[in-house]
Amino acid sequence: MADKKMVEAITSMEEDFAQWYTDIVKKAELIDYTSVKGCMAIKPAGYAIWELIQNQLDAMFKETGVKNMYLPMFIPESLLQMEKDHVEGFAPEVAWVTQGGGAPLTERLCVRPTSETLFCDYYKGVVHSYRDLPQVCNQWCSVVRWEKETRPFLRSREFLWQEGHTAHATAEDAEKRTVQMLNVYADFLENVLAIPVIKGQKTEKEKFAGAEATYTVEALMHDGKALQSGTSHNFGDGFARAFGIQYTDKDNTLKYVHQTSWGMTTRLIGAVIMVHGDNSGLKLPPKVAPTQVMIIPIQQKKEGVLDKANELLDTLKKAGVRVDIDDTDKTPGFKFSEQEMRGVPMRIEIGPKDIENGKCVVVRRDNGEKIDVALSDIESKVKELLVTIQKDMFEAAKAHRDAHTYVAVTMDEFEKAFTEKSGFVKAMWCGDRACEDEIKDKLAVTSRCMPWEQEKLSDVCVCCGKPAKKMVYWGKAY
Amino acid sequence: MADKKMVEAITSMEEDFAQWYTDIVKKAELIDYTSVKGCMAIKPAGYAIWELIQNQLDAMFKETGVKNMYLPMFIPESLLQMEKDHVEGFAPEVAWVTQGGGAPLTERLCVRPTSETLFCDYYKGVVHSYRDLPQVCNQWCSVVRWEKETRPFLRSREFLWQEGHTAHATAEDAEKRTVQMLNVYADFLENVLAIPVIKGQKTEKEKFAGAEATYTVEALMHDGKALQSGTSHNFGDGFARAFGIQYTDKDNTLKYVHQTSWGMTTRLIGAVIMVHGDNSGLKLPPKVAPTQVMIIPIQQKKEGVLDKANELLDTLKKAGVRVDIDDTDKTPGFKFSEQEMRGVPMRIEIGPKDIENGKCVVVRRDNGEKIDVALSDIESKVKELLVTIQKDMFEAAKAHRDAHTYVAVTMDEFEKAFTEKSGFVKAMWCGDRACEDEIKDKLAVTSRCMPWEQEKLSDVCVCCGKPAKKMVYWGKAY
Repeated sequence: MADKKMVEAITSMEEDFAQWYTDIVKKAELIDYTSVKGCMAIKPAGYAIWELIQNQLDAMFKETGVKNMYLPMFIPESLLQMEKDHVEGFAPEVAWVTQGGGAPLTERLCVRPTSETLFCDYYKGVVHSYRDLPQVCNQWCSVVRWEKETRPFLRSREFLWQEGHTAHATAEDAEKRTVQMLNVYADFLENVLAIPVIKGQKTEKEKFAGAEATYTVEALMHDGKALQSGTSHNFGDGFARAFGIQYTDKDNTLKYVHQTSWGMTTRLIGAVIMVHGDNSGLKLPPKVAPTQVMIIPIQQKKEGVLDKANELLDTLKKAGVRVDIDDTDKTPGFKFSEQEMRGVPMRIEIGPKDIENGKCVVVRRDNGEKIDVALSDIESKVKELLVTIQKDMFEAAKAHRDAHTYVAVTMDEFEKAFTEKSGFVKAMWCGDRACEDEIKDKLAVTSRCMPWEQEKLSDVCVCCGKPAKKMVYWGKAY
Repeated sequence: MADKKMVEAITSMEEDFAQWYTDIVKKAELIDYTSVKGCMAIKPAGYAIWELIQNQLDAMFKETGVKNMYLPMFIPESLLQMEKDHVEGFAPEVAWVTQGGGAPLTERLCVRPTSETLFCDYYKGVVHSYRDLPQVCNQWCSVVRWEKETRPFLRSREFLWQEGHTAHATAEDAEKRTVQMLNVYADFLENVLAIPVIKGQKTEKEKFAGAEATYTVEALMHDGKALQSGTSHNFGDGFARAFGIQYTDKDNTLKYVHQTSWGMTTRLIGAVIMVHGDNSGLKLPPKVAPTQVMIIPIQQKKEGVLDKANELLDTLKKAGVRVDIDDTDKTPGFKFSEQEMRGVPMRIEIGPKDIENGKCVVVRRDNGEKIDVALSDIESKVKELLVTIQKDMFEAAKAHRDAHTYVAVTMDEFEKAFTEKSGFVKAMWCGDRACEDEIKDKLAVTSRCMPWEQEKLSDVCVCCGKPAKKMVYWGKAY
């Protein structure tokens, strides 16, 4: 039985989801608050998850030809202002450097909130001929947005992310890359983070400042709220015209490039917590678990127990499993509780009786199942279980998402779906901003996306009754 | 023969070393200048080297128990001012954020020049008992120092680095970690970057702001100038007292922690250029070469050539070699020249005659040697050669360093060593700041370090003639 000391300190998610989230973030030692208002310290246990996200996502990027690079963290004010929609979108929430080296600066520098303008400035210098295209670059860095209200991982004044920026010869190539990267994101979320997503397009109202089209992957959290988990933008040649990024084509004419950008952030860690976690703590999918298996010796002072446990540790390490042992003098119950809080996908209990019987007990974090495993089979069984847990966690999240996705044909159904239940609501939309605004004002919900997989739920807009153009996912968003 | 078009554009290093350096940085496409004064764009070819540095150094850190984490990029002014020596050292060269979210801030935030103060603030929160020690954390990030004159990689207003920060129960543990990390740096420089180093301690004058002791690894560039390549600082309990970081020891008394920090930066890429490069361009040690082998087909339009070249590509890829093929329609000479400029350690030339004879020609970048290799042996031979090149590049750099290290017993010899030659000069020192200042004023050279491996060159200080305390390495520094 898990020791109650640690567990009791967590608010249950049914009682207060926001507090439950904050408790996990602290108790699993992912985050610490800092003296810097609105900025968080990502502690080793949290950062190790980010490293696993980075490594796997970066490998997927590179398979599609992405190259990493690094541009400055500062954007001169004049550069930020080059593209009108973009500056309008970001200027209100930037931080400005006005002094450097003991003197006032002649021009303010903003700390990058995103780097479209810097990449444009860079591409203007390196793109001359069709031979220089495409440019498919990415950077891993931190960005700053001066948010008023902040929450660990979900919204903070500084956060870590990757931002890909590409330049292409044609509109078709740009569109292809925009879609390709959204598919990479969906693949990553589903297969690495075990989070099912809806792929779709943002409405005009919700799209990125300066983009022609924004694609998004939307996920449903355990409390029924939506989380935008990654976006991919097609800029057309808007930025290229603003910055004058032209190339000489094969036919010797000057043409504007077509650009895209796409990003995912540390908020993914928040998504993992809110999709998979429970009242015992964090639940990490094996692919992003810094420790996949925790070995907990039982009656460890008895002769041979620690030896056998360490033997197990070596065996699993050699097999490439991220495994650790807790041989501290805490009680087994306390250790179980800690391992559960930290989201380690599997623990192995091994005591004198187990050793006598040539076995150990494997306990799955995702569903609590206890499995007797012969010590001789442990390597293959652990590897198999890690795959199973990864898959089962995805299936469980998908079942939850599907059970909390509602259809509304009338405004009455629509309202009820958001007042009596909580989740995604699918409804038809006429395409007018006015209906989107009305719905937001009335119910505080936003259009999450126009999914790529369209369904025809009815012929008319749920709000105004005019002919419908698109089926839309609506939700309360983080 | 290498095509001259590309090569002719480089200034020779003998003629103008600074211009040669700048030419390489541009021609090998490592860096671009940006619209942000004093900040550089690290282009994909440059960033790929940094990734290899990161991966290998990070793995070495983790073997010693280092954990990565992330702290904010901003430091509130009041926090920066907590440790007197530290703020005096850094305040003059920081950038200040004074506005955020459209309003002036109540307290200025500096963009981190280094994060001792933030780590102290963090450790104060997480360290309570001896059980919480040691804390051995590191972050990979960028920092900002408002330099007046900048040079690509060597000195720029923003640069990438890692900064390790540790807290220990005792002074002995802190000293052990300080020394351990300097040894990691030396090992990394010598065995990964093929750069021989002198390990030693900085004088009081040259040590880090706030440190009790600073250890350094110093390398000699091809022009005879010194480059400080990594430093490790022991802070004693100075920061702990300033920030009030205390823990309850086993004996139930409150004690201050002892701290260290250590860092290496993107200037390492500058070191690689200046230690190994030549008048044909960059020379990358195989361990940090993004492309280790470039296959260049000869008469590639002849039947079978490209097939065979691609077969070679696959073979070497499967063997884990970072290999690429240049099958563009440029001339072979141009391709050779490009490969040399970019520092690819080895190229393989393969044409119709080679294929007829079941061989190819391997050309080493480090010494130009051409070697006929049977196609059947290519995998083992390439792997063997990569090891040999790595080793030979270190030996060549060491021979150069040793040939440019001079001994001065008298001030006359000392002056001559710096006016008639250029390199490291070893000389005895009394330990007085006055002599160090005098030498710097007169010859514009600085003490690089008091090497751990001391020699007794004479009994008296090279400057004042008083009894000598230490043998010191002196040099002109970047």
